[in-house]
Amino acid sequence: MWFGLSGVRTPIILVNFKTYSEATGENALNLAKAAEKACRESGICVGVAPQFADITPISREVDIPVFAQHIDPIKPGSHTGHILPEDVKAAGAVGTLVNHSERRLKLADIDAIVTRARELDLITVVCSNNAAVSAAAATLEPDMIAVEPPELIGTGIPVSKAKPEVVTSTIESVRKVNEQVVILCGAGITNGDDVASALKLGTKGVLVASGIVKAKNPYKVMLEFAEAMKKAQAS
Amino acid sequence: MWFGLSGVRTPIILVNFKTYSEATGENALNLAKAAEKACRESGICVGVAPQFADITPISREVDIPVFAQHIDPIKPGSHTGHILPEDVKAAGAVGTLVNHSERRLKLADIDAIVTRARELDLITVVCSNNAAVSAAAATLEPDMIAVEPPELIGTGIPVSKAKPEVVTSTIESVRKVNEQVVILCGAGITNGDDVASALKLGTKGVLVASGIVKAKNPYKVMLEFAEAMKKAQAS
Amino acid sequence: MWFGLSGVRTPIILVNFKTYSEATGENALNLAKAAEKACRESGICVGVAPQFADITPISREVDIPVFAQHIDPIKPGSHTGHILPEDVKAAGAVGTLVNHSERRLKLADIDAIVTRARELDLITVVCSNNAAVSAAAATLEPDMIAVEPPELIGTGIPVSKAKPEVVTSTIESVRKVNEQVVILCGAGITNGDDVASALKLGTKGVLVASGIVKAKNPYKVMLEFAEAMKKAQAS
Amino acid sequence: MWFGLSGVRTPIILVNFKTYSEATGENALNLAKAAEKACRESGICVGVAPQFADITPISREVDIPVFAQHIDPIKPGSHTGHILPEDVKAAGAVGTLVNHSERRLKLADIDAIVTRARELDLITVVCSNNAAVSAAAATLEPDMIAVEPPELIGTGIPVSKAKPEVVTSTIESVRKVNEQVVILCGAGITNGDDVASALKLGTKGVLVASGIVKAKNPYKVMLEFAEAMKKAQAS
Repeated sequence: MWFGLSGVRTPIILVNFKTYSEATGENALNLAKAAEKACRESGICVGVAPQFADITPISREVDIPVFAQHIDPIKPGSHTGHILPEDVKAAGAVGTLVNHSERRLKLADIDAIVTRARELDLITVVCSNNAAVSAAAATLEPDMIAVEPPELIGTGIPVSKAKPEVVTSTIESVRKVNEQVVILCGAGITNGDDVASALKLGTKGVLVASGIVKAKNPYKVMLEFAEAMKKAQAS
Repeated sequence: MWFGLSGVRTPIILVNFKTYSEATGENALNLAKAAEKACRESGICVGVAPQFADITPISREVDIPVFAQHIDPIKPGSHTGHILPEDVKAAGAVGTLVNHSERRLKLADIDAIVTRARELDLITVVCSNNAAVSAAAATLEPDMIAVEPPELIGTGIPVSKAKPEVVTSTIESVRKVNEQVVILCGAGITNGDDVASALKLGTKGVLVASGIVKAKNPYKVMLEFAEAMKKAQAS
Repeated sequence: MWFGLSGVRTPIILVNFKTYSEATGENALNLAKAAEKACRESGICVGVAPQFADITPISREVDIPVFAQHIDPIKPGSHTGHILPEDVKAAGAVGTLVNHSERRLKLADIDAIVTRARELDLITVVCSNNAAVSAAAATLEPDMIAVEPPELIGTGIPVSKAKPEVVTSTIESVRKVNEQVVILCGAGITNGDDVASALKLGTKGVLVASGIVKAKNPYKVMLEFAEAMKKAQAS
Repeated sequence: MWFGLSGVRTPIILVNFKTYSEATGENALNLAKAAEKACRESGICVGVAPQFADITPISREVDIPVFAQHIDPIKPGSHTGHILPEDVKAAGAVGTLVNHSERRLKLADIDAIVTRARELDLITVVCSNNAAVSAAAATLEPDMIAVEPPELIGTGIPVSKAKPEVVTSTIESVRKVNEQVVILCGAGITNGDDVASALKLGTKGVLVASGIVKAKNPYKVMLEFAEAMKKAQAS
């Protein structure tokens, strides 16, 4: 599945840079270049979600889809210290994470953000913590839902193997209210096996952070993820 | 007064870009260039506080002090959608606004932000709404305090003329607990007279947003502000 | 429709006391007594949502359903200044408002609150601002949804007459994902006509605040609302 | 030191009931009665801070000072789910905790709360996490400051013994800006020795939660605390 001209397509590896020092400033640019290399080598889409101040340099120098980690439900105006959707778009972002477990949002704001993003052709990846919240989010018709049990985030214990029922119940609950939305999963994904499991459960990709950002060789891990996706697609 | 090698010195015109469309993306860069021109022409320090994604391009192309509009009280790590002090510094910021009335913060977080900023040599401009809050903030030893009565922000009614007692009581209250901190004022500042009044009341500069960003000719207004500051200094 | 032994049944007039002085302390108790009288006189269910500290005295002295205005998504433990569901239940509440426009909540917290309330047999009335948010909330299976366009709250311009399409689109969107949930509407409801309109549009009652709390004679207004409901039911 | 007719005087044992099940509903009333007994027996002031819904029954049946755990910086009006200062006062509270580490507040809100409480003759106990925040809070002229290192809360490791320097540096920093405010300390206080240490360091009492609420015999522990205070006063 392709998302317009954004370069985003499924299956996808979406790398959340968080505020890790390995993904800050110059490091963020290098990591994005490694993602670009893994994407070219494998043919699998690798997207990155760097910190706000790193969106511009990455978008200018690297040819892969760049996501913001958050946008605010605002229009241009008097909003000091907020994230204006128009500004991250101008900086080169093609989409945004919404409601990550480290940046949980009010329900009315998720609705407003998805609406604002749609106006600007920004792709929305709404994060959720369980099947019920995933279904609620899915009624708002974002482009993607990424389910991540918060207790597994950053642990290296992969949701796709440790809690496959979270993924399958999410897919089931979401499909009752929304047949289109792309479903990703995340939390604890560290190797190709975890990725393969995620796709076998019915997702179209993974949202991943420390498993790649904090790896000794992020490029190698991204390539391993991508190869696992190719195999899963072929089978 | 000079702030190390940051280029920041008093008196100062600090322009908060907020999330105005006139100060987003390409417009932000052009506005920063106008600020640079006004600074060179007048010799008065003009700083800018653009949106996060605009810090990098402005820092690279414009030679004036760039501030973030906010930073979070965090260290590198798992903080999706947050503003890491190290990242805005890597992007070229020399300081940050803190606790703007449109981004009010918890007291413990202001303390933590000022501490983190000090570790990284980032200049802190803590905003406050009245004399009491200014004094409380001043005990935390930020570099600057900017008092802005929220009811005047964006009105064009200048605090320095409409509510001079807010400014003088702030200076009095702050000086009881902190003799060093630079005091600015803001809200409704739109012309050279307002700026002159602000300096006569004892401040070392102004924090200004719509008065410049939404002016027909921002460069001209910045120059008018700067000339008023030069006169006030000379007198 | 009856909600177990709670005394709650539809159609319902649910009076949100907010923090109005007319509904604080002794005034809250008197207002609740007027509600009880209107309920007895008309046979229509009138519920009240007083401030937390007024739940106990009202529950002890008045025989109508009492709701909290909010509960937190917490279990007993270390949570200073929070609203424990068990405590409002012990105080006599049979249910709670959730996500009122003056107390908007994170999506994950609405999910957790509805779950906690269900464990304790507390009736949940999740408030929403539009049809999309109503449907999202409805997937979480609360007992009731109350749609209130925030721009009409407190205006005296009744949603049921000024924006009937908000009510009808809410009913339509909610029914796609949840056939059971009771749907109320609110904002600007001030007389029997507004109530009749609300029921004709397909709701099972109204959530009302200033229209009753700030009325010269709240008892009379509640009676008028109740009589309008009886007529609407009969027709 | 006496605080008007509120019954509050120093030294004081202030018991935060939090949302512990041992201090919810009927249990809250019983715990307050035990506090009253310890207060009568020892002559030392014991105050309690129960959950909002328990303020009324406790105030009616127990003759010791009752505090709210939080109030909002609001006046009567449209504020669903908020804590109106007037309402907790009407329910019988004589004061309130402010900015507890489990309910951290914005600086401008702490200022507004202290001002509102003063208008209503409610005693304010502003909590803080370190010496710097204590001093900032002290400039706002609350009645009391309670310093509690968050990392020790609920641990049983007493601040007065494990981190005496937090207490002494707080007293030193606070006294530079405010000579009057009463200083308490808290976190990990579990026996008479901890209390004696707290008073020897220069505080006028303790803010305590689990050490009493979760004790097998809360009455006995409160009496032990009170006796330690009497000895410390005498020496």
